[in-house]
Amino acid sequence: MTKHRILITNDDGIYAPGIYALWEAMCSIGDPIVIAPETEQSAVGHAITISDPLRVVSVQRSGGFKGLAVTGTPSDCVKIAIKSILDKKPAILISGINQGANVGKNIIYSGTVSAATEGTILGIPSIAISLESYRSDDWRGAKKTAVDLACYVLQYGVPKGTLLNVNVPYCDPNEIKGIKITRQGNQYFKDAFDERTDPRGRTYYWMKGKIIDEDESLDFDGKAVAEKYVSVTPIHFNVTNESYIEKLNKQFTDERP
Amino acid sequence: MTKHRILITNDDGIYAPGIYALWEAMCSIGDPIVIAPETEQSAVGHAITISDPLRVVSVQRSGGFKGLAVTGTPSDCVKIAIKSILDKKPAILISGINQGANVGKNIIYSGTVSAATEGTILGIPSIAISLESYRSDDWRGAKKTAVDLACYVLQYGVPKGTLLNVNVPYCDPNEIKGIKITRQGNQYFKDAFDERTDPRGRTYYWMKGKIIDEDESLDFDGKAVAEKYVSVTPIHFNVTNESYIEKLNKQFTDERP
Repeated sequence: MTKHRILITNDDGIYAPGIYALWEAMCSIGDPIVIAPETEQSAVGHAITISDPLRVVSVQRSGGFKGLAVTGTPSDCVKIAIKSILDKKPAILISGINQGANVGKNIIYSGTVSAATEGTILGIPSIAISLESYRSDDWRGAKKTAVDLACYVLQYGVPKGTLLNVNVPYCDPNEIKGIKITRQGNQYFKDAFDERTDPRGRTYYWMKGKIIDEDESLDFDGKAVAEKYVSVTPIHFNVTNESYIEKLNKQFTDERP
Repeated sequence: MTKHRILITNDDGIYAPGIYALWEAMCSIGDPIVIAPETEQSAVGHAITISDPLRVVSVQRSGGFKGLAVTGTPSDCVKIAIKSILDKKPAILISGINQGANVGKNIIYSGTVSAATEGTILGIPSIAISLESYRSDDWRGAKKTAVDLACYVLQYGVPKGTLLNVNVPYCDPNEIKGIKITRQGNQYFKDAFDERTDPRGRTYYWMKGKIIDEDESLDFDGKAVAEKYVSVTPIHFNVTNESYIEKLNKQFTDERP
């Protein structure tokens, strides 16, 4: 039996520990191919490269890890993988494993989620997976989750236009309480700017901030992960606010001359 | 009476013709302040700059246009404007006028829309406005539309978390048929990569493609603009696919051991 072709990408770059862990996990269930950014692309959102050329170079890491590094964004990687590099579409795409959760409002900034969104747009069942920690010493829970969810998607598929945004708590795998199907919550990054002076006396600013999460229900992604559940959120990019269409129509036709 | 403070930004950069046209239009109804990217940032999506510092420099153009240029993305501009530069929140934010429509699936790549999204997240009634042309010789229709929509939002507001994505047909203002309240349609950019060889014999790739729009209803953004209506789409970034939650819950609890 031919193994499932699994496209792996990320936003932390092809040399990140998380993509290596994901590659190891996917080797156990399929035939992974890694096509990922050459350098870290965190917080690039759904950026694509249209004004510059892209280059693609081979990368090898220990343990037989081979991949292609692209001088672009996560979305660029997925586009060029599907349109130019692969001879046929992969069975699934998995983006990650990101260091740091991608939940709440912050998912719109996430390169990890954007890669999975791009896969979805191109018709590939896609998963974004993130570990709720910036530490990189224990990928066991995230690897097991990646295998579980990949097997789920290979078996059941996902609806057209929808991807799974998966977040894994950082703890001993035995402490993970289970899977919660969640909604995008309200967690956000309350940001501020440090105003500093460079060695030449000129002002510069550096974004800083802290995470605010006031959600109290396990129905929401951030809260579920904080409570040691794996959070699985089905997301799509139909961004029309349907509930406001009627009111706008009324205001623009009835109430205005 | 104090004039309304109007924050203007864009993704084509502070020297673009579209932001100048927008500034001119807003001078007629309020007190515009321009805080925009120093360089073109098209297709950066919702990228933000977290690993590098930002700088802010004063810019003057003809006719009394003054503004601040930020060495970052459209989202960076909005964040730093609200968090560090302005002493109080503006009455509204307008992002544009973009050269080229932002409709259909492509809005997730749009820096113009992202700036308005960032404004929305920060609690400012926000509008993204784009002209359906890459030409820059006639801004009359877009300027009139910008004034109309800004006045609308100043009068009626927008629901929390929702912004207006406005697209203007490129034609004589008298040929514009009116305003359509629309939904995000299915227009997309069918992309491909040109494989080329550089002067040193190395391969590089350049993204190319063409716009595909199969929508036939004026309910959709791209079609409405093509038919010479101003398209106004209320959008938000609640990306949970609610319709799939129940099925996922069922599959993860009932059908799996």
